[in-house]
Amino acid sequence: MAKITAVSPLAPKSFPALPVIRGVRFASIAAGVRYSGRTDVMLAHLAPGSTVAGVFTRSTTRSAPVLDCEAKIGRSGGEGAAIIVNSGNSNAFTGHHGVESVRAVTSGVADLLGLPAHRVFSSSTGVIGEPMKHERILASLPALKDMLREEAIEDAARAIMTTDTFAKGSAATVDIEGQTVQIAGIAKGSGMIEPDMGTMLVYIFTDADVDQPVLQSMISTLNRTTFNCITVDSDTSTSDTLLVGATGASGVRVAENSLGFMEALHRVMLDLAQQVVRDGEGATKLVEISVTGAASDADAHRHAKAIANSPLVKTAIAGEDPNWGRVVMAIGKSGAQADRDTLSIRFGDINVAENGWVSPAYDEARAAAYMKQQELAIHVDLALGGGTARVWTCDLTHGYININADYRS
Amino acid sequence: MAKITAVSPLAPKSFPALPVIRGVRFASIAAGVRYSGRTDVMLAHLAPGSTVAGVFTRSTTRSAPVLDCEAKIGRSGGEGAAIIVNSGNSNAFTGHHGVESVRAVTSGVADLLGLPAHRVFSSSTGVIGEPMKHERILASLPALKDMLREEAIEDAARAIMTTDTFAKGSAATVDIEGQTVQIAGIAKGSGMIEPDMGTMLVYIFTDADVDQPVLQSMISTLNRTTFNCITVDSDTSTSDTLLVGATGASGVRVAENSLGFMEALHRVMLDLAQQVVRDGEGATKLVEISVTGAASDADAHRHAKAIANSPLVKTAIAGEDPNWGRVVMAIGKSGAQADRDTLSIRFGDINVAENGWVSPAYDEARAAAYMKQQELAIHVDLALGGGTARVWTCDLTHGYININADYRS
Repeated sequence: MAKITAVSPLAPKSFPALPVIRGVRFASIAAGVRYSGRTDVMLAHLAPGSTVAGVFTRSTTRSAPVLDCEAKIGRSGGEGAAIIVNSGNSNAFTGHHGVESVRAVTSGVADLLGLPAHRVFSSSTGVIGEPMKHERILASLPALKDMLREEAIEDAARAIMTTDTFAKGSAATVDIEGQTVQIAGIAKGSGMIEPDMGTMLVYIFTDADVDQPVLQSMISTLNRTTFNCITVDSDTSTSDTLLVGATGASGVRVAENSLGFMEALHRVMLDLAQQVVRDGEGATKLVEISVTGAASDADAHRHAKAIANSPLVKTAIAGEDPNWGRVVMAIGKSGAQADRDTLSIRFGDINVAENGWVSPAYDEARAAAYMKQQELAIHVDLALGGGTARVWTCDLTHGYININADYRS
Repeated sequence: MAKITAVSPLAPKSFPALPVIRGVRFASIAAGVRYSGRTDVMLAHLAPGSTVAGVFTRSTTRSAPVLDCEAKIGRSGGEGAAIIVNSGNSNAFTGHHGVESVRAVTSGVADLLGLPAHRVFSSSTGVIGEPMKHERILASLPALKDMLREEAIEDAARAIMTTDTFAKGSAATVDIEGQTVQIAGIAKGSGMIEPDMGTMLVYIFTDADVDQPVLQSMISTLNRTTFNCITVDSDTSTSDTLLVGATGASGVRVAENSLGFMEALHRVMLDLAQQVVRDGEGATKLVEISVTGAASDADAHRHAKAIANSPLVKTAIAGEDPNWGRVVMAIGKSGAQADRDTLSIRFGDINVAENGWVSPAYDEARAAAYMKQQELAIHVDLALGGGTARVWTCDLTHGYININADYRS
């Protein structure tokens, strides 16, 4: 993919101040996996007693590190844990060599930190199908161990970037019966984004004390309304990974029914998901598509994704054209139930279409002015039932073509 | 959509010499529906005794003319028939006004030619959601009638163009027991192309004598391997229409099991379908995706469409990058069955990947040289079963963004 020169216009002003999560230490290094002049490996070490939960891409061609994580994620113990991530090479579709790379790297980290191998999780992101120079990662491990610090999460966020134009972080604080729990997370992702599960690479840490099955159940539920509701280009990565580690260092116990913790975790997950869309390749607009009145939630999601993935809708948004006819087209092709004569469409608070035609009060000039905004909302009501969905996407611009039509190098 | 200045580099050298189909006469005119300085309405009149069959978009927001055609298509009689088509306005999502436009235009043509209204089929293509100035079409009818000629099919092909950069025609001759039958067809389509049935607008005529149910069954079958196997941008039109008219003027009877006629009709349908892809908005490459060894034909089709619609695959092709990792990604996300470790990929006759990794003999320089060709073939074998599919697509370039990110005007 091409080198990125400019930061996305949708980027947050700066990387947020993330709280220290007691029990997690980070390090990152320039190992030279593929890039030069930048860090490309990050290591996170979680203290003994931590639990780790994860969701992963459902791609049938998922990468060797994803398959390894899936095999390990349910296995828990009193030991600590580690997460090692490299950018520059996704170690996907790399056959036996790929499996050996994962084994070498996770065993190396296990030896380094005195952990059992099944407590070391790895991710790789970058080019598909090229053998990974894992010996360069192995050579960097001693230095990484020496650098482990609780405060180094922002550098970790930078080390996992590929075509990302900004590092992504988010945090939340939650009070549980008078005690404070911290949550902090980082993410990467910019293109090949229509996660079919977790997403791109996302790592969230908390000092809460949560049993692994509870944590796993929480993130699987929250994933459905966060990472599974974003799309940049309808292409699903082979490497999508969300790992959440809970160290328990706060001493605050989080039970299955802790709505406060769930809400805080949801905020962090949604923030990171939206930051990924804000860094969509070539993006100049952030668009929320909400659908109500569908026959079911699944139908609503299908309509919303059809709109969010339509190249014609996305290019119209890029051109600041309130071309609502293309939204009608996308609803029509989605495969989900719709009745042309009951559906209505709103751009922001502007009624665009209702009862199977343009709204009587529709004012094209007002709609065109609205489209100049950087953040847009498209709302569709089908008047068929109670199904709802919300997804986030970006526009499709020359920038996307520039980034992806370049020869790999 | 933006004005097109250049003809697609994938266009045929010239419009083909189409044979006269005895029993069908054509006329076209500049009625000023939306465009100026070009023809925008075409009329085809089929002699008494003709049969007409059709397939239409399955979009739930399909246009008023499509709904009208669907209601009429099974009704047959000894009368003649007519097809009236305008470009510039799709008369889709236009509520009651749209229904009235269709009624006015088809009744007008029925009166003009002395036909029952149910034998007049109409199509409209262009902007969605704007009221159609059908009175301009009505005003043009007498002049259209005066101009009806058997030889005027090429002008008819031009009158139905929207963002098309060239007029599309195709013909075939078939001998049935020593007698000759002619088939000739025209099509339009360039963007919003992932037909979920017939396609865009396609009109095919033959002087064969075929019963309507036989003709209907033939085109429904052939449609599955022709128009339903092309995609430009994964967006399905509200107006896709394929109408086939058989005049019987040759006196040659075509039976249900006439393989010769089916083959000839298939050739014309496939040629027109591929011409639509050759005129894909911004296209510089025509790509055939073939999938074999899938668990079923449906699975093969799903894989092929996932590859053909992937923005990352399409931009890699635009960049002449043999980025086969993106093909692996698209297979992985398709939702159809795949085994990473048995799949193989070929670009032309170059083995790219096999057994879950890059082929041992893979030569990147050779693959890169191959990608410079204007017509490309990507072949995937899954080694799972006997399912096969072939689809055709084009690349995704700055041209597509230029055409579609412009404000409607």
